[in-house]
Amino acid sequence: MDIKEEALKLHIGGKYTTSIKCPLSSKKDLSLAYTPGVAEPCKEIAANKDLVYKYTSKGNMVAVISDGTAVLGLGNIGPHAGIPVMEGKAALFKKFAGIDAVPICLDTTDPDEIIRICKALEPSFGGINLEDISAPRCVYIERTLIKELNIPVMHDDQHGTSIVVGAAVLNASRLTKRPVESLTVVLSGTGAAGSNIARMLKKLGVKTIYAFNKDGVVDKAKYDSYDFLIKELIDDAVIDTKAGHDGTLASLLKGADAFVGVSAPGLVSKEMVKSMNSPFVFAMANPTPEISYDDAIAGGAALAGTGRSDYPNQINNLLAFPGVFRGALDSRASKITEGMKIAAVKALSSLIKDDELRSDYIIPSAFDERVVDAVSKAVAEQARIEGLSRESL
Amino acid sequence: MDIKEEALKLHIGGKYTTSIKCPLSSKKDLSLAYTPGVAEPCKEIAANKDLVYKYTSKGNMVAVISDGTAVLGLGNIGPHAGIPVMEGKAALFKKFAGIDAVPICLDTTDPDEIIRICKALEPSFGGINLEDISAPRCVYIERTLIKELNIPVMHDDQHGTSIVVGAAVLNASRLTKRPVESLTVVLSGTGAAGSNIARMLKKLGVKTIYAFNKDGVVDKAKYDSYDFLIKELIDDAVIDTKAGHDGTLASLLKGADAFVGVSAPGLVSKEMVKSMNSPFVFAMANPTPEISYDDAIAGGAALAGTGRSDYPNQINNLLAFPGVFRGALDSRASKITEGMKIAAVKALSSLIKDDELRSDYIIPSAFDERVVDAVSKAVAEQARIEGLSRESL
Repeated sequence: MDIKEEALKLHIGGKYTTSIKCPLSSKKDLSLAYTPGVAEPCKEIAANKDLVYKYTSKGNMVAVISDGTAVLGLGNIGPHAGIPVMEGKAALFKKFAGIDAVPICLDTTDPDEIIRICKALEPSFGGINLEDISAPRCVYIERTLIKELNIPVMHDDQHGTSIVVGAAVLNASRLTKRPVESLTVVLSGTGAAGSNIARMLKKLGVKTIYAFNKDGVVDKAKYDSYDFLIKELIDDAVIDTKAGHDGTLASLLKGADAFVGVSAPGLVSKEMVKSMNSPFVFAMANPTPEISYDDAIAGGAALAGTGRSDYPNQINNLLAFPGVFRGALDSRASKITEGMKIAAVKALSSLIKDDELRSDYIIPSAFDERVVDAVSKAVAEQARIEGLSRESL
Repeated sequence: MDIKEEALKLHIGGKYTTSIKCPLSSKKDLSLAYTPGVAEPCKEIAANKDLVYKYTSKGNMVAVISDGTAVLGLGNIGPHAGIPVMEGKAALFKKFAGIDAVPICLDTTDPDEIIRICKALEPSFGGINLEDISAPRCVYIERTLIKELNIPVMHDDQHGTSIVVGAAVLNASRLTKRPVESLTVVLSGTGAAGSNIARMLKKLGVKTIYAFNKDGVVDKAKYDSYDFLIKELIDDAVIDTKAGHDGTLASLLKGADAFVGVSAPGLVSKEMVKSMNSPFVFAMANPTPEISYDDAIAGGAALAGTGRSDYPNQINNLLAFPGVFRGALDSRASKITEGMKIAAVKALSSLIKDDELRSDYIIPSAFDERVVDAVSKAVAEQARIEGLSRESL
């Protein structure tokens, strides 16, 4: 059986089901879990809304919400076709962090309608994971919900990868003894993931970031042609303009210390890597990276990472989102802040001790059981520090 | 421990959780259930939307949706306080019919907004069970959704009880050899449940129904004072006006063959039952009926039933909704029709053979394992007869 057949067979009937946490086998059971007993928790919550966290599943329940407009690399395939991905994400939440997650694909692409629906769903959910919503709509939706809801909301495509890349860059810097402050980073891809990676790297200390996207080199001279995401990155001094570039990615890469790609297959050649400064190469286009792991190393990269599980240093957002939500739910945080994401980066990077770091081991495996625990504890602690935890709930 | 304490203890952490149906313990597992393998079912569904039933959990997934405006007998306690009931309902779906159900309490009471949200949720769900939404809004919401969605939608408060009462009346008629066509029925309560009970009884052959509600006897002379539900019942010749009533429930009951109550505790006295024609008394106000089982029998009722599990003939919508949805999902019915509800009534009533019928056994127990099977098969068969099944999906 090839992978297509095997994957289709596995998906028959879906990947997700529900289970009951209480007995329902006798009249007595029914009288407690349903009428008349169920009226008791209802009355308690009606008198004190915070008790919804005590007497319902809300506190461990996350909605995985998509509109199917940017599913994997498949693009706008619609809400029905997006369900297998959301079920997969829900399954990962459960498997890796014990979080009950409900996959919800919405039959609307209107950002304001999506916002209204997420707000209306709030009573039943302890958090919302936005997923596979096209940019820049996803940014508007996430920011509005973070502002207007008091449960944690995160768009994983924006932040999951940025957390893991942050940890990879910190550890590459530690291994090679090249301070992050000294690095010149070239970013390929300035959408939801790329723009947040740029922000994260700046917060971690990187001083210089050049960017490239499907329209060419991002240059302040072309400011008026950009969407609001890139304008913001320029306004916030996150993206710089390299002097003397000739419009090509190759000209940006010359002499740079790191490549970070969330763009398209095959954009980077061995020769381009050779022109760089013994770089870190993180080529995360999926499933075919901007340059293969082997070619990056052959081109003289100090180390490399891709999104693939069959090569070293897999940059996998599975290292981030389960622990981030676990920590946010455990601390009953009202939101997931930049500080909490940075705490996740540092927790992830710290899992590998100085004497364990190697060029082919700068990031833990997704199956490393310490990951969720370390990330969630760091996130919850940061929520406490920022005064956002509501652990009495 | 009293029932309050015991119920509260049972509800800590909620009653509902999610589970994974596929292995996720190795890189290989991940590559099938998530990227890159998950792209295969996504592409299949994108090419043929009907395959969502094959490759996702949709076909067995029901949303239990409420806005918390009419929860149990507690009234408008809001969406958060309503969650324990919706979790209970979801648990019953799972326990009794193997249906995966997700409790969703919406933070909006605008009927059009609720309709928009339900329509937007359609991709992920094979059916929608509306619950505890106040009348007459619930009627508008349910009818609109039935018209505009192609998945089954049922408001259980409207139809669950009417199906079970229908079966109880059929069997009472069979036991006492009094044809349904000969019965004069008095209905107390003309909201969501009452109005649909009246319709159901008419469809089953009852010719004469008088009604009473909190404003007194329903009388055509007061037509203009009624909400659209009662106007409809009068327009459709479902509710009749008794000649010579004096405005009291007592005057309606005199000489009648059956009382059906979905109203308020204690409205009916032993003396009123004595004034009736050796009646069937179905007193379903919860948890305290319009008249107790014992008083109804003492008053001369031929038989009686209540909503209580501690007396014979419990009229429990648990006898209806699991099987109705199981049958609708199994046949991939696009809606739940009147014909399918009547099929459910007949299946339920037929479970008790002529020689098993007794005045204290006219309706099966909710724990009778034949119930869901019989109801679901009848509902699915009726969907086929009506050309609404889509079993190739």
